[in-house]
Parts: sequence; structure tokens; C-alpha cells
Amino acid sequence: MAGSTYGNIFRITTWGESHGKALGVVIDGCPAGLELDEEDIQRYLDRRKPGTSRITTQRKEADAVEILSGVFEGRTTGTPISLMVRNTSQISGDYSEIASYYRPGHADYTFDAKYGFRDYRGGGRSSGRETLGRVAAGAIACKILAGLGVSVCAYTRSIGPVEADEKRFDREAVFSTPTAMPDREADIAALAYLEKARQATDSVGGCLECIVEGMPAGIGDPVFEKLDANLAKAVMSMGAVKAVEIGDGCRVSARYGSENNDAFRMEDGRIRKASNHAGGILGGISDGDTIVIRAYVKPTPSIFRTQETVNKSGEEISVNIRGRHDPVIVPRAVVVMECMTAITVLDAMLLNMCAKMDSVADFYRAKEGK
Amino acid sequence: MAGSTYGNIFRITTWGESHGKALGVVIDGCPAGLELDEEDIQRYLDRRKPGTSRITTQRKEADAVEILSGVFEGRTTGTPISLMVRNTSQISGDYSEIASYYRPGHADYTFDAKYGFRDYRGGGRSSGRETLGRVAAGAIACKILAGLGVSVCAYTRSIGPVEADEKRFDREAVFSTPTAMPDREADIAALAYLEKARQATDSVGGCLECIVEGMPAGIGDPVFEKLDANLAKAVMSMGAVKAVEIGDGCRVSARYGSENNDAFRMEDGRIRKASNHAGGILGGISDGDTIVIRAYVKPTPSIFRTQETVNKSGEEISVNIRGRHDPVIVPRAVVVMECMTAITVLDAMLLNMCAKMDSVADFYRAKEGK
Amino acid sequence: MAGSTYGNIFRITTWGESHGKALGVVIDGCPAGLELDEEDIQRYLDRRKPGTSRITTQRKEADAVEILSGVFEGRTTGTPISLMVRNTSQISGDYSEIASYYRPGHADYTFDAKYGFRDYRGGGRSSGRETLGRVAAGAIACKILAGLGVSVCAYTRSIGPVEADEKRFDREAVFSTPTAMPDREADIAALAYLEKARQATDSVGGCLECIVEGMPAGIGDPVFEKLDANLAKAVMSMGAVKAVEIGDGCRVSARYGSENNDAFRMEDGRIRKASNHAGGILGGISDGDTIVIRAYVKPTPSIFRTQETVNKSGEEISVNIRGRHDPVIVPRAVVVMECMTAITVLDAMLLNMCAKMDSVADFYRAKEGK
Amino acid sequence: MAGSTYGNIFRITTWGESHGKALGVVIDGCPAGLELDEEDIQRYLDRRKPGTSRITTQRKEADAVEILSGVFEGRTTGTPISLMVRNTSQISGDYSEIASYYRPGHADYTFDAKYGFRDYRGGGRSSGRETLGRVAAGAIACKILAGLGVSVCAYTRSIGPVEADEKRFDREAVFSTPTAMPDREADIAALAYLEKARQATDSVGGCLECIVEGMPAGIGDPVFEKLDANLAKAVMSMGAVKAVEIGDGCRVSARYGSENNDAFRMEDGRIRKASNHAGGILGGISDGDTIVIRAYVKPTPSIFRTQETVNKSGEEISVNIRGRHDPVIVPRAVVVMECMTAITVLDAMLLNMCAKMDSVADFYRAKEGK
Repeated sequence: MAGSTYGNIFRITTWGESHGKALGVVIDGCPAGLELDEEDIQRYLDRRKPGTSRITTQRKEADAVEILSGVFEGRTTGTPISLMVRNTSQISGDYSEIASYYRPGHADYTFDAKYGFRDYRGGGRSSGRETLGRVAAGAIACKILAGLGVSVCAYTRSIGPVEADEKRFDREAVFSTPTAMPDREADIAALAYLEKARQATDSVGGCLECIVEGMPAGIGDPVFEKLDANLAKAVMSMGAVKAVEIGDGCRVSARYGSENNDAFRMEDGRIRKASNHAGGILGGISDGDTIVIRAYVKPTPSIFRTQETVNKSGEEISVNIRGRHDPVIVPRAVVVMECMTAITVLDAMLLNMCAKMDSVADFYRAKEGK
Repeated sequence: MAGSTYGNIFRITTWGESHGKALGVVIDGCPAGLELDEEDIQRYLDRRKPGTSRITTQRKEADAVEILSGVFEGRTTGTPISLMVRNTSQISGDYSEIASYYRPGHADYTFDAKYGFRDYRGGGRSSGRETLGRVAAGAIACKILAGLGVSVCAYTRSIGPVEADEKRFDREAVFSTPTAMPDREADIAALAYLEKARQATDSVGGCLECIVEGMPAGIGDPVFEKLDANLAKAVMSMGAVKAVEIGDGCRVSARYGSENNDAFRMEDGRIRKASNHAGGILGGISDGDTIVIRAYVKPTPSIFRTQETVNKSGEEISVNIRGRHDPVIVPRAVVVMECMTAITVLDAMLLNMCAKMDSVADFYRAKEGK
Repeated sequence: MAGSTYGNIFRITTWGESHGKALGVVIDGCPAGLELDEEDIQRYLDRRKPGTSRITTQRKEADAVEILSGVFEGRTTGTPISLMVRNTSQISGDYSEIASYYRPGHADYTFDAKYGFRDYRGGGRSSGRETLGRVAAGAIACKILAGLGVSVCAYTRSIGPVEADEKRFDREAVFSTPTAMPDREADIAALAYLEKARQATDSVGGCLECIVEGMPAGIGDPVFEKLDANLAKAVMSMGAVKAVEIGDGCRVSARYGSENNDAFRMEDGRIRKASNHAGGILGGISDGDTIVIRAYVKPTPSIFRTQETVNKSGEEISVNIRGRHDPVIVPRAVVVMECMTAITVLDAMLLNMCAKMDSVADFYRAKEGK
Repeated sequence: MAGSTYGNIFRITTWGESHGKALGVVIDGCPAGLELDEEDIQRYLDRRKPGTSRITTQRKEADAVEILSGVFEGRTTGTPISLMVRNTSQISGDYSEIASYYRPGHADYTFDAKYGFRDYRGGGRSSGRETLGRVAAGAIACKILAGLGVSVCAYTRSIGPVEADEKRFDREAVFSTPTAMPDREADIAALAYLEKARQATDSVGGCLECIVEGMPAGIGDPVFEKLDANLAKAVMSMGAVKAVEIGDGCRVSARYGSENNDAFRMEDGRIRKASNHAGGILGGISDGDTIVIRAYVKPTPSIFRTQETVNKSGEEISVNIRGRHDPVIVPRAVVVMECMTAITVLDAMLLNMCAKMDSVADFYRAKEGK
């Protein structure tokens, strides 16, 4: 219920189904006075578009965004920003068969269990197209963060067993390789791996990584609203993500404290850490170091093989799913992870402005000209 | 800010510092008419008490809970339940030194960065004692869930490299072994490993697992309030947790779709899955199968070795932390994970009651006697 | 900030400015399975349309609503319902002058004080057109409530000094008189009063009343989320409302307890009250009687007379506002009050489903077929 | 459900029943660094204590507050502040009879309708003692506001037909007269009126007024979170309040626009209004003028006369309520209104800090020393 809203101060509400008339998002709480036009948002939406390569669906989607409210004379007004993308290429006929049964690995059965019925066209609300709203909102969050000196960057860390090598890290490659890997050699190996899977009518998973640089220290909260807890929720709320790591993640469980603790030291008059096993967050609050998050993504559940399942009448059946599906979700999810991270970090930064009595007093003293 | 409240319908607000006068929790939204007494809650609090073994702190804590409101004639009234545990054994003198510097791996620096100063006694609000409120509230959630046929069970899955063997799974062992492992052989091996670490003045991490059995299908939400997203937040909000997995977690990223999809089948007239790689959640909504969550916990940051850090004056110094500290946090975190999971699942189940128009109409028809 | 969202379970987010591209609302948390089409909503929107009489603005507004998501095969899916109305008749040229100064009684100055600048066209976000989203969402709430046996009905109680007489109460008149008064004689008198004010280039205020019939007892909450507290907020959030009354409202302050208490009695086997000074709410919770709310509305601030004000440069100036403006807001606000009341009552009813342990247990026993 | 929490950034959660062990409040989100001790809070609690006059209950209540968390070395830490007042004088025996029937004008019946049963001792959660938590939290809000140059002052405006005269306004009288009226002559007349009602075993109502001086312009929000909407909720959430007015309130409905509009003018280089019919709020946002709110309070429902009602078995009966009860609630509600207003205003001021992009950028530029 009411589960399509995210964020406290910078709060987004997404809507729309894969094959409905349109999809969109309302961003409420964006500070007033930010320069913003459709191009700022379109740039991000274009990053989740299907490419020309064989690893992403061939469905043609223009996905042109329209700003419907909240921007006046080129600047945000502080009131809700409504963004919409019309669906143009949906052909509902493709999906009529899957209305009758539950695809393994998909949310068909759980939607029916919850709501009694579902919009079965292209996954309805659980389609990857739901992320259009997240990305459109995230583009704004990224722009604001950039103005505050904070940059957010996500990329594909691995596809199947093929992992990007940190020593070959090349940020430009993220935007130009089909896999969105920051390592051109790994990209080539991953493409070969993907092609083999595709020929075997199979699909593969992978790992996304996102880093946040330029974070001020002191952002986040000590108990339930820990910055890492909110990032974990943000990232786990992306379809197909089954695990989230902060900093060294799972690996810390097999380490000694003497290996895992990050010593503090001074650097240019600021407190810094000698290492970053913590991934930039201590006790739920940013420590000023780079934030590192990883998301592990399952293989696309739609595969072109015979699978066993049940239909709505409760009969066991064998099915062959048809249609066009990416053999891997990971590259298209890169920008989604970047956006969910940005929204979460920005919201925490806005909330943080009233953490100290001094800050509050300074703000009102300045405002009242005292 | 205002980060000590968790949950929507069943909503808890915790308060208290390690060395303050008391710690507690207010539970608001607990349905009326539940039989409840202090013993129901004390049982859970006792599970986080230090044991007699050398792996947990020797600090004596009675931690006797008092119900201050919300229960009348042995039943919950539907109004806020206030629970309090008085601190009895705090000796602030032990902690005066650490006021001046930032312990590696702790939240000392980030608290100062956020709030300008901190209650440095025993970690203040970031102490493990903060979890008293979570556990007291979770005891109530567990009792309600039990009445609805849902059981929540957490245990230690691994300590350092020593992992419990599923083939030797023994639920009773969780409550009787010092490590809270469900495998008595692994417990012995883990204790030996811990003893070695302790002698080396070091600490170790580990992994917690929690399973939820008896879950109805259809619980959770499809977008931001996915059940797994909320579980990830719940678990990542526990101190020292650096990674969260649902179902097969990280491993899915290296699998093929044909391996990872769980086929549906019929069992006793109900839809079930032939395997459970998904960990009981599809598209953010429970599928009726066992929910499986894992949390990876870092080694206790307090180790009795010389460490490099900086003090509040910005000078680099070497420190030796004194006091008594567990060489491992994991066993005492077991009940915390169980409680955070229970609160999250219960809240989702309560929210779910108005998912369908039919349910709403039935409820009001019955209420109005029509 | 993020102040355009209302409701907890049935949660609406409105967006749009008077002269922007469009206005709309996202309704999240609407139970699945409700039959819904555009006509259900359009009927309500049409009630706020300008009529043919001289008491409402002559601006032509089609205000045709489009359902963009959340409805599939004629029924709500449980996912967000996005509704949009395109602006068609805005001519921004009319408003360029008022960009430079602050109209008395309007929000021009306070918007600038808050946001630094504003969309000055037609009042921007503070325009009466903002209520389009409220009414579109309220139409759905009313439909659900009707299915639960609850009816919500608002009307004009007074315009200036002319008050509808309860003895002549005629519900049909609400929909057919230009003033939306439930009393045809009062309507005629009010129109004459309005015409005089219009000729004197002045404007008038009035009072709205809303009654909710068929309410179950037991809805609402005892402390901050009192049903009357939420209704007061709902109604006071409508532009130009300066006072809210529940039941006998202000008058109770001059009464004796012996006059004001409503005796309980039995009626057809149910507990009822012999009188209804309380307006259907006791201690924040509905008592099963008719809920009565009144809203007092100020005269339209736009009047066609010379007024004193200041401009953005801080100079005192005299202004004559031009354009077309209703000499009274009240009749067009009737449907808005009905909708805000319905949304508030429905949300409370949905929340109420988990008030008792028995209800929760019954629900899950039925769901799991036990 | 979960209706005992109020506020967004400065968020309070109250708990406790009239005759339970204790009552209290948790304040989460209080900025760090505020000097605070128990005396700051006790001063406010003492204002709601029964006086020595005959107009308030004779029950002896020490109501000594204890700070249990969130304050360290005399300053708030930014973490939850838990405040508790132990009940010392409750004698449950007085209340056993009313367990069986529903007192007219009280919440007995509606609690049973909602929760199935109730804590019948002294009104349980719906007792006036519930306001202890509100006042304790409000004392902190008032202290913060004072530091920001904002003062909040409530008083009794009328008791029955006896109204304070603005021309005799005397702020000191609020604290020293038994009626908390700011007019010593009206106080004497009101006491005579009350004495007559008491002798007639009856009770009376009245009106509270609260003014907020020193408000910055630009606080509040334009749509649902209008400052006046939130104030209306805050005030209507107080027991026995049946109407709320902002500024000239109900009276505006019978005025002409030319009378009601407040002209803007310049005063000492600042934009001010020539009159204040609006009560300091335009379009939901503060205009820098004094905020004026009024609450109309019903007569105490407990009167010492025979009343008609029904019992839990559904039988019509006549009852005589015994015990000690104030013949008027108004004077003791003064400090409650002051506190609810202060909490609401403070929360809006904290939220307002991120309304403009410039403010956000300035804050982080200063924080990062750039």
C-alpha cells in the first residue's frame, strides 16, 4: 500500500505500468531555484535505453520526458515537479498468453496473491520500465549533488564470472561499453560470455557497484535511519537485486578486527582514514570517505526454454516464454543504482541541515538579517 | 533526525544510551487484546545477556524490563506500550579517556562530525545496548506472529571461517551453545577459533541467518516498500552489519537463469516452489515459501592492540583501548536480527490487510453486522 | 517541503500550477479490484467547473481527466493511479503585471519569502486549480466509501449573512443551485447579495458544511491522529478557509455541560445518541452518528478596487488587479470539502482494520484457509 | 494506530494512561547542543498542575519529570530525549463502577467500539493526563524557539460568556490568575460564573487563544502542509476542542473582501501588513506578522447530575458520576495549547531550512569550509 513513495525531504512518487498509457514520477521537496530543463533528465533516461548490441532488448523506446509542473522560467519553484514519459511502442497482444500462468522467477504469482489479479502486460508495475520514474527523479538529485560537490557513479562490476579489474578502472568506459563496465577488456570477455548464454537460450546475473565521492562527514543517522541502512533499502528495492554490500561487505565476516579497522589520520588538515574497509560509513553516518555499495543481481528470469510452472487454475504445466528479453539486466540497471543512491544521499544531506542547534540559529539569524 | 522510529503500523521508537539512566522503547500501533506480561519480553532480553563464556562481555547486566503503559488487565489496549530497562552497572569513569580521541571502526568521529559533540560513555547511543529497545519490541512482534502461524528464527551461521553445517542443523543448539550456532560441532570449532583470536588480542566477525516460516503469500509491496528492501534496511540498521543477502544472495550473480529460477508446482492444493533460491520473496512480495536473510557482521572494532588514530585536536596518536569487549558480536546479535525481522514482517502483514477491495468490504460488513 | 502528499494508506500526491502544462494527482494505496473509469472522476471534476451564472469565473475549462495508470480491464490494480488534466485555456499574458508586486490577501509575498521567487501566473501552485487533484482523488474515495455504506455530502451553509435554513433542507438543490445551497430560498437571497457585492466591485465569504452519514463507530485515534484533528487539517488545508468546527463547534464554549452532553440510548439494538452536539466524534473516534464539519471561508481576495500594497523593490504602491475572478469561492469549494473529508475518513477506516488482535487473526485465518 | 507520534523533524511520541505506572514522551530530532535540564521542563509541567482554587481538581499530583536520555553534560545530544513522570496518586478503586457503562461526552464508548475494551481508570489514555507528554516536549520546543527570537503565548480568552477584554490585556495575569486570563477583571467575573455552575453541579466551556510573535516570513507549505492546517490539527488534537480559528476565523465568512484584505506596507525596511485579519498566515505560509489561533473548548463532560446512558450490556440506565472533576478544562489547557503550537511552529521552521537551493549550497559550503 502506498509503497510508491520514497524519501523524506526530497520525496519521489513513481507511477505507471509497462504497457499503460504512460509512466512518471512526482518529485516533491526539491529546493527552489535549481536550474532545470528536460535535457538534464533526458540524458539520464537515455542511459537506460536499449542499445544497439544484442545484450539489450530490441524494443524501440523513445522515452521522451516531459516536465509538466514545478519548473518556471528554467528554475525549480519548490513545488512538485511532475515528469512523464508516454508509452509509445507497447503491443499488448504479445502478452496475452502469460495472463493465464505464473512465470518462474517473476512476480506474477505474488501479485495475484496480494491483489487478486494483475496487469499481465509486460510485467505491469513490476516491469523494468517502472524505473523510468526513479531515473528521472535521480537525474535531478544528481544535479543537485553535483552542485554540492558530491558525485555519484555506478557501473557494472561483474557479469557472471567476468569481473572488472580495478587496476584497469576507466570511468569513460562505463558510458561507452555495452556492459557499462569500467574496464574495456572485461567488457569484451563479458560480451563473449553473454553471447554464449544467449545462444544457449539462457540468461546471466552480475554485480553493480556505486561510489559516492566528495561526501561531507556527518551525514546519516545512528539508529534506524543509518545511511547504509537506507542505501541497502534503496538498492534492494531495485528489481532482481538479491544482496547488498557496503564497503568490504560479506568479506568482513571472515576478517580479524586488526585487519578490518580503518586507522584515522590527518590529511591536509582534515581527518581521513588510512584505508576504507568501512565503505565511507561508520555507525550509520558518513565519515567523509568514498561511499562504496554493491548490488548483486539475479539472472533475467525470462529464458527461452521450457520451464515447469502452474497456471491460475492450479494445474502444473510446461511453458515456453516468448518475446524479447535481455539475457542480462545489469547494464541497464547501472543508471538506476546511481539514481537510487543519489536520491538517498541527497535526502540525508537535506535532513542533516537541522542536526545542530548552532546551524539552526545561524540559518535564522542570517534569514532575519540579524 | 527523528531516526529512532521504525515501522508504519506497528511502530517502535527506541531511546537511551549505554550509560544513561535507562533505555527503552515505545511501541505504538500494537493491536488491542494481545495477552502480554513482562515475562514475554524478559525472555527475549535474556537472550542478549552476556553468558558465562569468555566470548561475551563480563559486565553484569540485570536488564529487567518494566511495562509502563499500554497493557491493562493482562492485555494490550491498543495504545502505546512503553517499556523501560534501568541501567544499573554503568561506571562512567571507565570511559573518560576515549572522550578525547576517535576509536578506529567506531562511530566516535562521525557523531562529532554530525552533532558537534557526543556522549562518549560506552558508545552512547551507538552502543550495542541500544538494541535493548529493539529486542523488547521484537518480543511482542514475535508473539503476535506466532499467533498468526508465522515463526521467526535467527542463528549464527558462521564465525570467522567456521560455518554451521546445514546437515547438522539443530534448532535447540541455537539457544544452548555459546555461539548460538545451530550445529554443536561448529560451535566447538568456533569457540576454539575465538579463543585464539582473544589470546592474540584480536576480534572476529561472522554471519547471521534468519528464517521466517509459515509466511502467507502476498505480503510486501512491489516498488519501494518491497519486503526484501525493508528487511535489508532492518538488518543493515543493526550496528556492524556490512552486507545483507536474501535467499541465495550474492551467489545469484554468477548463475544462469536456468539454474536460478524456482519452478512452481502444486503441493496439497497450494502453489509452492520446487526450490527456494529466491528466499521466499518475488518482486518484493512473499511467495509463501520460507524467507531467508543473512547479515554479515564485521569484527568487533574494540581490540586490545595499539592502533593509530587522531584526537579531537587533530593530532595523530597511538592508542590502546581498555575495558571489556566481546571478541565477537555475532552471538549477541542473533536475537536482535530475529526481532528486527519480526517487526518488519509483522508491519507488512498489518499493512496488507487493506490491499484488496473485497477484504475491506468484508471487514466492514462483518463489523457492522450486515 | 514535500507538502503535496496527504494520507497514510490511501495516499494522494497532487501536482501542477494554474498555468502550467497540466495538473494531476497520484493516488497510491487504493485497494485493488475497485471498478473505476474516467466518468467516475469526471463527474466530480465537473462539479467544480464554472457555471453559467455570474458568480463564478467565465474562464472556459474543459478539465477532462485522463487515467494514466493503475487501472486495468476496468478495475484498480492496487498500484498507483495517475490522473491528469491538461491545461488548455491559460493565457499567461494576463498575469505579467502581478509578477512585480504582492496582491493583498494572496500568497504572493509568502511564496517569495519562502522560495525566493514564484510562478506568478494565475497564482501558480496556490491557485484554486490545485484542487483538481484533490477532487479527482476524492471521487475515488467517495466511490469506495459508498460501497462501504458511508456517504459524504457537502454544501454551502451560508454566503455572507445569508444562511440556508435547515428546515428547508433539500439535498437536490446542492447540485442544481448556483450557490450549492441546500435551500432554494436562501439561494435566491444569496444571489441577490452576491450581485450587489459584484456591482460594488467587492467579494464575499461564506460557510461550508459537510456531513458524513453511515459511519461505523470506532474509526479514528485517541491522541494526535484524532479523526476530528485530521478533518480539521484536511479542511484547513483548503485555500481561504480560516476556521473549522466539528459538531456544534464554537457554540460549545458558552454552554453548560448539562446542555452539551449527548445522552446514549439504544435504537434497534444499537448504541446511539439522543442528540449530536459532538458531531459524531468522541475522544477523536467516531461514535456511529453523523459527522458534521463546517469550514469558514474568507472573501475572495481579488477585488476590482484600488488597494495598497508593496512591490518586489519594497516600494509602497496602489494597485488595481485585473482579470476575471469569482466574487465568492464558496460554491466551487463544496466538492473540494466533500473530497478532502472523504479521503480523510477512508484513510482512517483503512487504518482501523488492524486495531484489534481478533480482526488481524480472523483476516489471516480466512486468507490461509484455516 | 500508531497515532501517538507528532511532528516530522522535531518528532514526539507520547505514552501513558491516567492511572498507569507513568506517563512520558520521547522527543526525537531535537537539534544537538541545546542547554537543557529538568527545571526547563518542570516549569511548564507545573503550569498544568491543579491550583489551590476550586476550579481545578484537588487531586495531588507531584508530576516530577525525569530526563532519562538524550542529554549529556547539560546539553542535548541530538539523540532521543526520553522524559517520564511517575504516577503517584492514582487510586484505581474510585473508577471501578464506570467500567460497566458509557459516560456521556466521554470516549468510553468509542474506545470500546475501536479496541474491544478499555483501560477505564480515570479515562485511561483519553485522560487529560495524556497531555503531560505534550507539555514536556513543548517546553523544549518553546526553549528552542525563544533562542530563535520566536515567542509563543497562550491564555484563556473566555469562560462561558465571560470574555477577556483586549484593552485590559495583561500578560502577567495569565500566569497568576486562576483562570489564566490576561485580564484581571474578567478573571473575577469568570470565577463567579464558575462558582455558580459548580453549585449547580454543572460545568462550563470556554475559548483559548494563542499568539506567536517574532515569526519569520516564509514558514509553512502551500498545499496540505499549510502552517494553519497543521496548527488546526495540533489544536484539534487536544481533548474537548471543537473548533479552531486562525486570525479572524469564523467572522471572515460574513465580511466583504475590501474589509478583510490586509494591505501590505513597509515598516523599518521590512514588508509588513497594515492589519492582521489573516492571523499571520497567507496561503499556508507565515507572513511575518503575529500568528493568532483560537480553540473552542466544550464544558467538562463529567457533571454531578443524573444522566441517561447505556451500559456494556446494552441496557439504558441512569447514572451519577462520582469523583473529583474540574468544572472547566480551559485554564489547564492553556499550557497545552502553547506547547502544541510551539512544536508545530518549530517543526515547520526546521523543515524550512532546505526550501531554497541557495540555503542548501550555503550550508554545505560553510560546513566543508569552502
